[in-house]
Amino acid sequence: MDNFLFYNPTKVDFGTNKEQLIGQHLAEAGIKKVLLCYGSERIKHDGLFAVVVKSLDSHQVQFVECGGIVSNPVISKVRQAIALARAENVDAILSVGGGSVLDSAKAIAAGVPYQGDVWDLFIGKAQIDTALPVFDILTLAATGSEMNSGAVVTNEDTKEKFAIGSVQLFPRVSIVNPALMQTVSRNYLVYSAADIIAHCIEGYFTASVQPRFHSRMVEAIINTVMETTEALLKDPTDYHARSEFAWASTQALNGLIYAGTSGFSYPNHMIEHALSALFNVPHGAGLSVVMPAWMKWYQQHNAAQFERFAKHIFGKSTAEEGIAALEKWFDSIGTPTRLSQLGIHQSDLPAVIENVLGNARYFGIAETYTPDVVQTILQSAL
Amino acid sequence: MDNFLFYNPTKVDFGTNKEQLIGQHLAEAGIKKVLLCYGSERIKHDGLFAVVVKSLDSHQVQFVECGGIVSNPVISKVRQAIALARAENVDAILSVGGGSVLDSAKAIAAGVPYQGDVWDLFIGKAQIDTALPVFDILTLAATGSEMNSGAVVTNEDTKEKFAIGSVQLFPRVSIVNPALMQTVSRNYLVYSAADIIAHCIEGYFTASVQPRFHSRMVEAIINTVMETTEALLKDPTDYHARSEFAWASTQALNGLIYAGTSGFSYPNHMIEHALSALFNVPHGAGLSVVMPAWMKWYQQHNAAQFERFAKHIFGKSTAEEGIAALEKWFDSIGTPTRLSQLGIHQSDLPAVIENVLGNARYFGIAETYTPDVVQTILQSAL
Repeated sequence: MDNFLFYNPTKVDFGTNKEQLIGQHLAEAGIKKVLLCYGSERIKHDGLFAVVVKSLDSHQVQFVECGGIVSNPVISKVRQAIALARAENVDAILSVGGGSVLDSAKAIAAGVPYQGDVWDLFIGKAQIDTALPVFDILTLAATGSEMNSGAVVTNEDTKEKFAIGSVQLFPRVSIVNPALMQTVSRNYLVYSAADIIAHCIEGYFTASVQPRFHSRMVEAIINTVMETTEALLKDPTDYHARSEFAWASTQALNGLIYAGTSGFSYPNHMIEHALSALFNVPHGAGLSVVMPAWMKWYQQHNAAQFERFAKHIFGKSTAEEGIAALEKWFDSIGTPTRLSQLGIHQSDLPAVIENVLGNARYFGIAETYTPDVVQTILQSAL
Repeated sequence: MDNFLFYNPTKVDFGTNKEQLIGQHLAEAGIKKVLLCYGSERIKHDGLFAVVVKSLDSHQVQFVECGGIVSNPVISKVRQAIALARAENVDAILSVGGGSVLDSAKAIAAGVPYQGDVWDLFIGKAQIDTALPVFDILTLAATGSEMNSGAVVTNEDTKEKFAIGSVQLFPRVSIVNPALMQTVSRNYLVYSAADIIAHCIEGYFTASVQPRFHSRMVEAIINTVMETTEALLKDPTDYHARSEFAWASTQALNGLIYAGTSGFSYPNHMIEHALSALFNVPHGAGLSVVMPAWMKWYQQHNAAQFERFAKHIFGKSTAEEGIAALEKWFDSIGTPTRLSQLGIHQSDLPAVIENVLGNARYFGIAETYTPDVVQTILQSAL
């Protein structure tokens, strides 16, 4: 194992009705006023908003609403929210939603005390020295943002989907009630499964130092996600499956499976970010297209680990069989495996490749991901 | 999954030469003077003490020595150390050693600000409201104490081996350098393996709610511990194996594999604590004796999970084969599986049973662990 520092101070309050405790958690942290971030107005129709407001009121926590955050969240909205948070003098950001709302909340939290434009923090022009505390109630399990220190936001002007990361951005408290996720659509369930699996395989396949223990934990997560996805497609009200799916999702990107690994990169995310930045496709749907294509190209670089994957996930014996089985499984649950299913065609490839190459420089892996390589991968995904 | 709150704020600084950073970690936390706890004088001969002192000095952190902490640490020593810590007005406790030193450090940390006798905190007479911060450099991977909020200490007068637990007792920073563990004796390596496996199987077999995901993570830990123990018996200098062994040990008792499980108990620890309290046997050696005997009796209560264990750990098909394989594996690595190997015989059983029954009341499982049951388990371990 390589040297590492593991630190993850997020409190995860997990289970039924835990959203009723949000006011208490905020009050315990001394918070008086929050910017309440959310996406669509759905939370006002399904009762969640009312539960949150009641909990805030009963603990004398004031709030200012900031709704309308979209999937593949955008920096313009973050900028508006920063202005609102400053004007209203809030002392914390509360996200009620999935990863897009939470990532926006983190960007807002970092942007409020920063004097320049918040995008500076995404392009390395400035560091995040401080941030408002972030709290959240998670309504979609996929991104792992509820227990990590990162956030991904798209700049609509430059078509860049970039990330920030800082120890300041770990949520103070994340409330994860799997019962709130019962109403997640069938499509978003399977896209989420693809996203979690992508978080798992990036390090699993690309790390130059990948302890056996870590491979085993990754396999525990993937096998759990596959099993519970299938259960939830049959019965979306299966709380047991919903809770294991959610907790596996959290573990996939909270640092645990990367601690002690080294030399890894995020090529699948690098490629997918181009798709969602340019075509606004759901992140997980983009990933389920990219992964099999990337794996077919990359397997030559880590043959033994691809054989391990085939064996421990699908009970197959060769790398090719494992990749084919994953692609088939994606097909079976109904998440796309072809660019054409996303409405992306041969004629779009030059623009995609250009965007991917920008990401490759940003991710620091441009030497490996040359135009030819990116072309090869995307071509096989058409 | 059952509802839970997961919170683990310990920073683990893991890897080679990390002990050189202890002064920096203390200084960053504003610590000016520590009680430096350790066990034998070995750390003065092997150079570790000098490294620690150099690091403290270079960050202007003063220290007072408190050596001589023994395995199966005792409350009388903790009381002495509390008096010393108060007299010297230290503002943190630094443990340099294994679980016994660290557990003592936690008890000292809780005892210094408490006005009564520290044993009160072990018997529930008082709660731990505050504690001095604890830092540690770990030299033996086994107990998991480096990333949890508990500590176990023996009261020599009453022959009770009891525990404390409080969010105040999470170490602030734990330094884990697997290279420091190369000199662990062959015996203590295999006892440690048994201890880690015991942490894994308690919840795995006894929880009334045991998510499949958690079973998979437990199996990842056990398989890693077995594989790396065998590697280390062949080559104690195998850093790769040493590091995976250490990190798996940390994961076995940092809350991760218990979050979302419920209704579990610690019967193997309950029985073993009687052995080490009465006969001062190494904790892990006691556990490797207790586990197969307990499993033979308990398997009827959770047949499916015992079959799962047999399959996923040993590739066997029946519960009996799995238990036999574990016992055989303990024999193969040289950790005891019979009470007689610990010098405990038929004539000692009445005293052991009496002590176990006291522990059963303390652990809250006296209804299950009646005198007859305890007798049956111990008898089969003779």
